[in-house]
This record gives sequence, structure tokens and C-alpha cells, in this order.
Amino acid sequence: MQDSKPEIMEELSRVGITGLRTLIKTSWNGREYIFIPEIEITIDLPRERRGIHMSRLVESITGDIEKEVEVKYESLEELERHILERVKEKHPYRKAEIRMDAQLVVDKKTPITGKNTMETHDVSASVIAKDEEFKKKLSVRVIGNSVCPHALKKCDGITHVQRAKCFLEILTDYENRVALEDMIDCIENAFPSEVYTLLKVDDEMHVVKKMFQRPRFVEDITRNVLNNAKKRFKDCEIRVKTVSEESIHRHDVIAEGFCRS
Amino acid sequence: MQDSKPEIMEELSRVGITGLRTLIKTSWNGREYIFIPEIEITIDLPRERRGIHMSRLVESITGDIEKEVEVKYESLEELERHILERVKEKHPYRKAEIRMDAQLVVDKKTPITGKNTMETHDVSASVIAKDEEFKKKLSVRVIGNSVCPHALKKCDGITHVQRAKCFLEILTDYENRVALEDMIDCIENAFPSEVYTLLKVDDEMHVVKKMFQRPRFVEDITRNVLNNAKKRFKDCEIRVKTVSEESIHRHDVIAEGFCRS
Amino acid sequence: MQDSKPEIMEELSRVGITGLRTLIKTSWNGREYIFIPEIEITIDLPRERRGIHMSRLVESITGDIEKEVEVKYESLEELERHILERVKEKHPYRKAEIRMDAQLVVDKKTPITGKNTMETHDVSASVIAKDEEFKKKLSVRVIGNSVCPHALKKCDGITHVQRAKCFLEILTDYENRVALEDMIDCIENAFPSEVYTLLKVDDEMHVVKKMFQRPRFVEDITRNVLNNAKKRFKDCEIRVKTVSEESIHRHDVIAEGFCRS
Amino acid sequence: MQDSKPEIMEELSRVGITGLRTLIKTSWNGREYIFIPEIEITIDLPRERRGIHMSRLVESITGDIEKEVEVKYESLEELERHILERVKEKHPYRKAEIRMDAQLVVDKKTPITGKNTMETHDVSASVIAKDEEFKKKLSVRVIGNSVCPHALKKCDGITHVQRAKCFLEILTDYENRVALEDMIDCIENAFPSEVYTLLKVDDEMHVVKKMFQRPRFVEDITRNVLNNAKKRFKDCEIRVKTVSEESIHRHDVIAEGFCRS
Repeated sequence: MQDSKPEIMEELSRVGITGLRTLIKTSWNGREYIFIPEIEITIDLPRERRGIHMSRLVESITGDIEKEVEVKYESLEELERHILERVKEKHPYRKAEIRMDAQLVVDKKTPITGKNTMETHDVSASVIAKDEEFKKKLSVRVIGNSVCPHALKKCDGITHVQRAKCFLEILTDYENRVALEDMIDCIENAFPSEVYTLLKVDDEMHVVKKMFQRPRFVEDITRNVLNNAKKRFKDCEIRVKTVSEESIHRHDVIAEGFCRS
Repeated sequence: MQDSKPEIMEELSRVGITGLRTLIKTSWNGREYIFIPEIEITIDLPRERRGIHMSRLVESITGDIEKEVEVKYESLEELERHILERVKEKHPYRKAEIRMDAQLVVDKKTPITGKNTMETHDVSASVIAKDEEFKKKLSVRVIGNSVCPHALKKCDGITHVQRAKCFLEILTDYENRVALEDMIDCIENAFPSEVYTLLKVDDEMHVVKKMFQRPRFVEDITRNVLNNAKKRFKDCEIRVKTVSEESIHRHDVIAEGFCRS
Repeated sequence: MQDSKPEIMEELSRVGITGLRTLIKTSWNGREYIFIPEIEITIDLPRERRGIHMSRLVESITGDIEKEVEVKYESLEELERHILERVKEKHPYRKAEIRMDAQLVVDKKTPITGKNTMETHDVSASVIAKDEEFKKKLSVRVIGNSVCPHALKKCDGITHVQRAKCFLEILTDYENRVALEDMIDCIENAFPSEVYTLLKVDDEMHVVKKMFQRPRFVEDITRNVLNNAKKRFKDCEIRVKTVSEESIHRHDVIAEGFCRS
Repeated sequence: MQDSKPEIMEELSRVGITGLRTLIKTSWNGREYIFIPEIEITIDLPRERRGIHMSRLVESITGDIEKEVEVKYESLEELERHILERVKEKHPYRKAEIRMDAQLVVDKKTPITGKNTMETHDVSASVIAKDEEFKKKLSVRVIGNSVCPHALKKCDGITHVQRAKCFLEILTDYENRVALEDMIDCIENAFPSEVYTLLKVDDEMHVVKKMFQRPRFVEDITRNVLNNAKKRFKDCEIRVKTVSEESIHRHDVIAEGFCRS
């Protein structure tokens, strides 16, 4: 029935499934990574076909993940490319996309007392196949803060400070090697201060002082991330969005930018 | 079929519908209020009956709201009590509950420049009918900030500041008159500073200075709200929860308390 | 300070505020509409300026809404255009955008018993100003259902049915008159059956029978909405996405399409 | 400063942190389990103390998890108990609570074709320490469906079907052995049919037929889960809530119950 002609002939750009969750292990630079991503996978549907065979998309994921328990892939995007190739064997398409939204846990030391701490970031990896070519889109969302330089000046050394979140997205050729952890660095470096899960008193004093020494608007943070990413990653389309959860307002403040490297 | 005996005889405490949305107008102290609440309504189901007649609950709401366009009720809770009484005529119950989650828009002036601004708060009103007695539960969630007094002392006048949210819930007899706006006051007064949608430069300086003059932990804010509410509202059960969206951590800090007045 | 040169010279495309909520009244075809939208407003920032004056954006909204209490505008988009024009007087920009996410409550009759019911839809209206030209983007999200025609055939008259949500977005010139309620019609008409807040037994039987008489994949629904919208609205870019919350899976199934009229 | 007397003397019941995320491995019955939970940990605060030392709570988690990489614990609740004991060494309390919200990935076979599939459930484990006694609260949320038996009868064999979610929560002594996977079974067994990530055509026909052979209201599902759990787990407080995402309405239908075993 899916292969029959539809009543209304209209091409569809993305047909598939979303919200599928499973466990995935990868091995990047010799270290094991574990993810429980939420997965979306879609293919295009030509105007003369009524529907796609959804279970073939699912099978391409479950079939691969089964084997994946032996940790065959070094990254989410390598697994994703493999899944899209497997779909191709089961179901024709001209364009296909797969996205995995996951959490990346990173070990760190606290800045002064050197204690172990663990920082968890939202990350996302997509692969887009189109006419035999593969692109990838990687993104990270990192938590930090913004510190208003204008109020700092007007109020003689005090100001409003707040949590801020920065999103960095990179679109590039599949082959271009980009590490999620380097993307996180590009953001952490741009905030007034990085934040930590664990902070003992000396660490906390260090973070507070750093924030007041490097006051930054959301606009400053966004430009800094654009700049950091442009220097670090070549041949990429770079998108940045910073959201500051104002401590003096009910609403948030945002700044978005885009550049190519 | 709903009135037949179920295979497994087990009483159910709350059966009904949730996520119903509609438009409601009330008139409190002569001023018109408009809400687009999300509504949940449930009744208990005795062990010897298989199901409830869901459409009778819906009809009790739509029937009332239709007339409500003429703004017959002074508050969400008055409308809710009327709905529960209407349900009673259509469907037997021993215990029934209705809750409306809505947003309350309040006019304000900015603190120094005196400009018009509008502040929107999440509010909730419930009525619980049990054995012919009516109770009500009102809650407000207000946005403000927390300012760490410990870091302020350790770092010689600077500290970390962040957005904080405080929830105040009051359970009392239906007849006890409690205004949502007075509940909001109890919270705003307990924060280092209230926040505003609009702040011109002079207003912003005022807010920043006030925050640093009244540094408060989440624990302080929660105790202050408990205290404010205990003084203002008599014969109530009072629950308070403050959440501070830390600017130096990825996680939030919370403090909860409970008292009776 | 905002007007000074930034350290890193990089143009930003969208700087502003998000999550501002307030109450708005409009009057479309003589009927009053009430919204409590969440508002996002942004302008572009040239590379040689450090920041924007956020409070001027807020003032452009609060100033307008104050007067709006007298219900001067016929639609959210007319109010939005006025706000962007007001921003222009206070703050230079080349490109500006404003979006309001709200809920639209529509009166209806149940299909057989003719009782009053009220249906609430998520809607969104944006105006984009660029080089003195105004575009608008309107969207609605409507709840309905999908009914699998493949299983219906394979299982001799029974099948899996589930709630589905369809998003229709229209981008067009500001002047092109498009009613949100007509957009909702385009979707409701494409589902196996429309859904209702209130359904008495006869209504429910009607809806169930209609669903089984018009079984549709998400792909069918999406194509039907594209087709309905193409016929009804001229000179538009039309985007449609349908999400089916499968009753036989944990995940959702989606179908997206795009066309011009 | 935290140890000083507060201005307002009022006991607080729960003070701590929420939204901390990290990676945890356990080993239950010899099989390795991996979680990336969101963690909340709180202790009570006596009326004569101003605040708690938040970093000691965090350290009790990070210290334990570090060692946990060697998979010392068999369950989330065993790790949680150990964390609360560690907090006790660093920070006095009378009552403490820790909760982890995570996702459990379970391997399965499709019902007819016997293919590998993976099912992911939201789960939660809490330990509550009070006066040297430990309790635990375990919960699972499982996705299935509801099938209206009333419409099935009225409409001669067709009816409305929809996704349903069921929550089962068990409160019991820490020592009482309860497996999350057994809790999931109690729910899956109560739905008209269990659902699967992967379904080939023959599997799908099986699920559809099973749904129509076992039509159930949310009330039926809730009573069945209560009954299943009461038989399987002794000396427990059992709470069940089923939410049916109606395919003929915009709103959801719910049924909640409680019993002791």
C-alpha cells in the first residue's frame, strides 16, 4: 500500500520516526563514551509514492546498535552514517537525515582545590545524506554565565550576574574531524567564567572573581564563540546562540550569529 | 458499561480529565481578569463501578464557562466550586477535585522612573470537595533572584547572583478569602530584589544595589516567605519552595518549608 | 557602552529578548480575541557596535500594549508591525523580527448532538521587517488523529489509531490577508476526523466511524494539508509537519512537506 | 555563615540541590546497567541554623561516583544509600532524601517475527533516610495504549485507540528487594497490548488484534496494575496513575489509585 500512488501527488521532504531512545557506546581516541540518545531519522518521499516503510528505518537502527555493543564506532556520527547506508540497502531515498540528541559527561578538576568533578552537556550529532554526499551537523549546549559590564560601571563595581546557556552548531563535510569536547571549549572560554558541578570555598571565590574581571554581554559571548570556533574549525558553517536568564527580569536575553570558516 | 462491576474490585481515588484548556473571565474587586487555564478535574470511583462518565465532567465545565462569558464569578476558585456542584448533579462522587493552572498579568510601575510595566506570574487554583466540605488550594510561582551572602563576605563585596523562582502554596477552607496578588507580594518582598519586565538605566541601578544590600540564600528566601504568609493569611497550611538557578553551577539549589498559621 | 566598538568585530543577526509574557486583545471581524502570548523580539547588530539597548525593545512592547487595552488592532500581526515601527523610532536596525506564541480558543458545536464546546489551539504570529519591507509568518498547531490504512486492510477492518498533531506555517507578505481560523480548517479537514473537547455518546460514535471511513497515514495528512492550504492561500510559502503519537510504538512518526502557492 | 542563627527561626524540610547529571554504572544479577540520571539530594535544616553546606552534598555524590566507575553497586538505590551515609559523615541531618531519574533500556524480541528490539523506559529510584531508618521509593513510567470498550460495543467492533502512559510507584523498606523490570512487567501486562520499538507487518497485526481483543478503559488498566503489583510485591505502598492521550479529544484522561500490600 505504501508503494501505491497517493491521491494527492506532492513530494514530502522528511518522513520517518522521532523520539526513539536507546543505549549507544562509542570509542573516541581510545576512551569509551556512553550515550542514551533520542533519535530522529527521516528520508524523502517522491510524489508518486504514498508512504515509506517505517519499520525499515527502525531496523537499520536496531540492527546496527546490536552490533554496536561491541563498540565498533568512534563517534555518534560514524554510527549515524552507517545507519543511513544500511537504510539505503533496504529503502530507496534521495535525501536522508539522522539526528541523535544526547548528553556528554566530561571529567574535570575544580579550578583551585583540584578535586574531581563531572560536567554534563547536551550534545547533538546529525548526518545528512544527499545525492551520495554526506554532511554532518554537530551541536553542543553549554551552561555558563553572563555579567553585565554596563551595570558594573554604573554601579561602581557591582552588577547583575546570571546563568547563561550557549549553543554552538557546526555544519561541515562528514570527513572534517570535529570533536564535541573542542566545541565545548570554544564556549567555556567565551563566558565570563566556566561553571562547575563541585566548588569548594576557594574554588567559588575564584569563579566569582573571574566573573567580575571579565564582564560580558550576551553579544560579547556570542561574538567570542563565533571567533573561537572560526579559528579552531576550518571549512565549516558556524551558528551560535546565547541565552541569558536575567536575574533582574522575568524574560531572557538572546544574541545569535553566524559565520563561515 | 461504566456502571457495571469491574473484574478487579479496587477503589480509585482520582479519575477524570487533564489538559483541557479554555478562556475564563473573572471580576475581582471590580477589576476584570482574563485567564486561559489548563484544567484538571477528577472524582473518586467506588470499587464496584467500572468507570466514570467522562463527558459529564467536560459538560460541567463547558456549561459553566458558556455562562461565564457574562463574568459571573469573582475568582477561579468560585467558578471551580460551581463546576464541582454541577458535576454532583450529573454524576455521584464522594470526593472531587478541580485545578486550573493559569497566568496572572499584573500592572506595575518601574521603581525609579515610574514607567508602566506588566509582570506575568504562573498561578494555580484548586477546589477540593469531600463529604460536602470544600477546601481550596492556591499557588503562585514568582520570579526573583538569590544573592549569596557567603561569597559576598569572602570576596569583599562581590558575589554570585542568579534568577530564583519561588512557589507559595496555601491550603485553606473555601471561605477563607486569599488574594493571589497578596500571595505574590509575600514572595516579592522576600527576594533580595523584585524583578521587572521593563527597567531603564536608573531602575536597573536601583535593582542591582538593592540585591547587594539584601544578600539572601535560598534558605533565607524560603523562611521569609513562610513568615510573610503566616502573618498575612490565617488558618492556612503554607508550603514554600525556592529554586535558585545558580550562575556558578549547572544545577539548581532548592529550599522547601512548611508551616501552619 | 553598547554603542562602543566591540573587541571582536562580527555582525550578529538576532539580538533581543525572549519569553516576555503579557495580555493582548484584538478585534478580528468585529469579534474580540484575547491572548496571553509569549513574545520574542530581536534586531540585527552591526559589526562595529558592541550591544543593543534592550529596554527600548521592551518599551516598544509595553508602550503599545498599554494603548492596546483599547483594542486598536485587529490581529497579533498588526500589533507586531506597529511594535517594530515603534522600535525603529527608538533604535536603528536593518532587520527586525517579532514573534508571539499564543493560544486561540474557538467555539464549536459537537457534530451530532449540537452541544456547545470550545477548542483551543496553539498559534503563532511573526512579523519580519527587512529593508523597509514587512513579511509575516503565521502558524497553527492542531490536534487530531491518524488511522493506519495498511493495518486496517491487513487486519480485516480493525487498525491502530492515535492522536496526531499537525503544524501548518505560512510565510507571506504582510498585506496578504490570512485568518488563523482558516488555517485551522485546512488541518482539521485533512485528519481522518476532527476531535472535540466535548463528545456525548452519539458524537463519539460519529467520530469513531468517520476515523475508520477515512484511514490516513501521516504522509496522507501532510499532503492533504499542503493541498488545502495551497488552494486557500495565494502567494505563500507553506510548510506542514504532522506528528503521529503511535499507539503501537514508544516513538512518534512524522511527515513534513513544503510548497509554494 | 551557614552555621549562624537565621533572622527568622523556621525549620526547613528539604534543602539541597537538583538537576545534577552524571554517568552511573550498576551491576544487577550479573548484568551491567548504565544510567545518565538527573539527581536531587536534600537534607532537613533545623530552625537555629541559617544554611546548609551545599558542596558537601555534591562531594558525597562525586566522591562515590568516581569509585563507582568500578561498578561497586548493584542498583541505583544501593548507590543512593551509600551517598546518604557519606553525607552523614560530612553534614549532620535528621532526614535526607536522594532521587535519581533515569532511563532503563531493556532488550526484547518482537512478538511474532522474533527480531531484536530495544525498549526504553523512564525510571526513578529514591532513598529516604529518617532517624537512622532507610526507605526506598521506586517508580517506572511505561508506554502502552488504551482501547475504549464502550465505543467498541456501540460501534460494532471498531473503537478509538490511543497511546497511554502508566506510572507505578512503590514505597517500601530499603531491604525489600524490588526489580524495576518486574515493575515494568506489572504495567505491560495490564495494557490492552504492550508496544514495541520495532514491529514487522506480522508483529503489527498481532498487536492490533491483541488490542481489540482486550479493550480497556484507563480505569481498568490502573486497577490491573494495582492488582499485579499487590500480588508481586509484599509490604509495599503502591501508587498507580494511567494517562490516556485520547485520539478523539485534545485533552487526556486519567485514573489514579493507591493500595497497600
